Amino acid sequence: MITKKNILNIEDYKPGKSIDSLEKGCGKKKPIKLASNENPLKVSKKVIKAIKDSLNKINRYPDNSAEILTEKLSQKFSVDTSSIIIGNGSDDIISMLCQAFLDSESKVIMSESSFSMYEICSLIQGAKIVKVPLKKDSYETNLNEIHAKISKDVRIIFLTNPNNPTGLAIEEKELENFLKTVPENIVVVIDEAYIEFSCAKSAVNYLKSFKNIVVLRTFSKVYGLAGLRVGYGFMASDIAKVLNKVKIPFSCNNLAQVGAIAILEDKEFFDETIKIIKEGKKFFISEFEKLNLKYIKTEANFFMIDIKRNADAFCDKMLQEGIAIRSMSAYNLPTSIRVTIGTKKENLSFIKTFKKIY
Amino acid sequence: MITKKNILNIEDYKPGKSIDSLEKGCGKKKPIKLASNENPLKVSKKVIKAIKDSLNKINRYPDNSAEILTEKLSQKFSVDTSSIIIGNGSDDIISMLCQAFLDSESKVIMSESSFSMYEICSLIQGAKIVKVPLKKDSYETNLNEIHAKISKDVRIIFLTNPNNPTGLAIEEKELENFLKTVPENIVVVIDEAYIEFSCAKSAVNYLKSFKNIVVLRTFSKVYGLAGLRVGYGFMASDIAKVLNKVKIPFSCNNLAQVGAIAILEDKEFFDETIKIIKEGKKFFISEFEKLNLKYIKTEANFFMIDIKRNADAFCDKMLQEGIAIRSMSAYNLPTSIRVTIGTKKENLSFIKTFKKIY
Repeated sequence: MITKKNILNIEDYKPGKSIDSLEKGCGKKKPIKLASNENPLKVSKKVIKAIKDSLNKINRYPDNSAEILTEKLSQKFSVDTSSIIIGNGSDDIISMLCQAFLDSESKVIMSESSFSMYEICSLIQGAKIVKVPLKKDSYETNLNEIHAKISKDVRIIFLTNPNNPTGLAIEEKELENFLKTVPENIVVVIDEAYIEFSCAKSAVNYLKSFKNIVVLRTFSKVYGLAGLRVGYGFMASDIAKVLNKVKIPFSCNNLAQVGAIAILEDKEFFDETIKIIKEGKKFFISEFEKLNLKYIKTEANFFMIDIKRNADAFCDKMLQEGIAIRSMSAYNLPTSIRVTIGTKKENLSFIKTFKKIY
Repeated sequence: MITKKNILNIEDYKPGKSIDSLEKGCGKKKPIKLASNENPLKVSKKVIKAIKDSLNKINRYPDNSAEILTEKLSQKFSVDTSSIIIGNGSDDIISMLCQAFLDSESKVIMSESSFSMYEICSLIQGAKIVKVPLKKDSYETNLNEIHAKISKDVRIIFLTNPNNPTGLAIEEKELENFLKTVPENIVVVIDEAYIEFSCAKSAVNYLKSFKNIVVLRTFSKVYGLAGLRVGYGFMASDIAKVLNKVKIPFSCNNLAQVGAIAILEDKEFFDETIKIIKEGKKFFISEFEKLNLKYIKTEANFFMIDIKRNADAFCDKMLQEGIAIRSMSAYNLPTSIRVTIGTKKENLSFIKTFKKIY
């Protein structure tokens, strides 16, 4: 076999492990998973009912256009249906963007410490990666530096707002000014996977002013449906048309569509999630302060903390005690950890174990 | 935006419509869908139970490695787990193959009348397509002609066995001889989506002899889980390693994995499906013969028939009567239709309406 150039040099994505495999790994019954920024609440009853009611249809292909879900999102966000793309998780849309816009002549700009799929999907298409470090000390996305790296070969700029793994949001005015200065032939992807937890203004509001932006959202975080894999994107309909060219048919499965439609109706679940995360955030902050720990003021459902020691080893020790969190070494932050805000009980267990190991 | 070269020239995949949108289209209550080669049986009770039992886990990401499903397939087919790839439908694996092996310097060979995703996914990567017509009159895959088209730039050859839309299987000895003559740096993909309905020998048996083959299978046909999107592929572990580089994490969702695991245990469902399709085949053949229609002796769960008139118009008329079948114009066979074998009742309705329109 002759692979595409450089494919073999791409580092494999390191996915979070499932609770079952964590259990095997640490030998503890029911380890607490605070490693993948999942929603810690029990699954919405409305979702469970809706899926149960549609199980008799899974011998049929899904609706390729995800018509009902698209219509619901269109209403909720006041965006035309022709500007919406549904994917098998937002990773799928990131992959579509790279397939549609990148080749070996292209360049892509992203923050050095951000979601690794931006880099992987760009490399698969043979594009060159330009990484911009976060601002020193503040860990903020360095939009000035990103702007300075723009050249004629750049096709996509990836931003995350709030950023993963820092949890920091981009200041509204700063983002707006940045968007104004980006040449309109460059697609600016603004991944808002965590925006529902934050006070940040969504870039959905800029869709009319900037025809070159793509706003990514997901049902995996605040909506608590990570297992179903549903992501969605808003963009000018011209960009959506291009993405539809590279979209795999039926990529969002029957039950995923049904679940996503149902959770959009479940206002209580949404509110409860926001409440739990807010309370957890408060608790973590007070504990971190007692411990004199330098944490970042997150606007998402997780905290990044520089523990000033090898994070890989630290996370391994935590796992042996039944607590799964994530080392940020893969994000080029080898002494930082990321912990998801869980339920009250989970947060308490984390702090207890953290104190023991730290 | 500046798209990748030629992306905008790719023709959109034309997916089969869901029963709900067919209903809207034809104004008939519950139209009969014989257009997408789906399984007409009611969904397996074992699958329904297994999914219901796992709904409380959908707030967590799926197992990225689909460990249990992979292990089950490994046992069933006596293939090492390192040689198995699970995808979001086999379309997803076709896309992975193209992303891993193709660029604008590559060529791909396929039959002129075969599954359109081979072409679309190849074009997305900028590859050149070499199409080989089916043998005239017999509609068989023309392996000699495919062999004649091999050149140093060819990276992938796509075969379908049995072929869609003809239903014809490739003769065992002929396939074996063909594989012997293909240079080992070319990946030969053998898509066996329909092989469970046929007497053809699976290429899984050739995995040890030929390190350059990829055998694709799906849970969408005989297993009746089209809505869940699960495809799987067998290949040398070296090829699987490359595909894992381009695989989107968590691409096969929680419930899809659970459903696929459950259906593998449901021998009764499998046997019942094979029985229904066999009976339907017999019925269709007797009716086609009464009508003096030239049909192809299918080894799959569908029939292709040359109706010697415009197939698009014919299918539209059938749909107005509440029967959805597929015109083969997109397969470059503008006077042929494809009809899926359904339940006894569905088959009767099809024949009744067919007679009326024909």
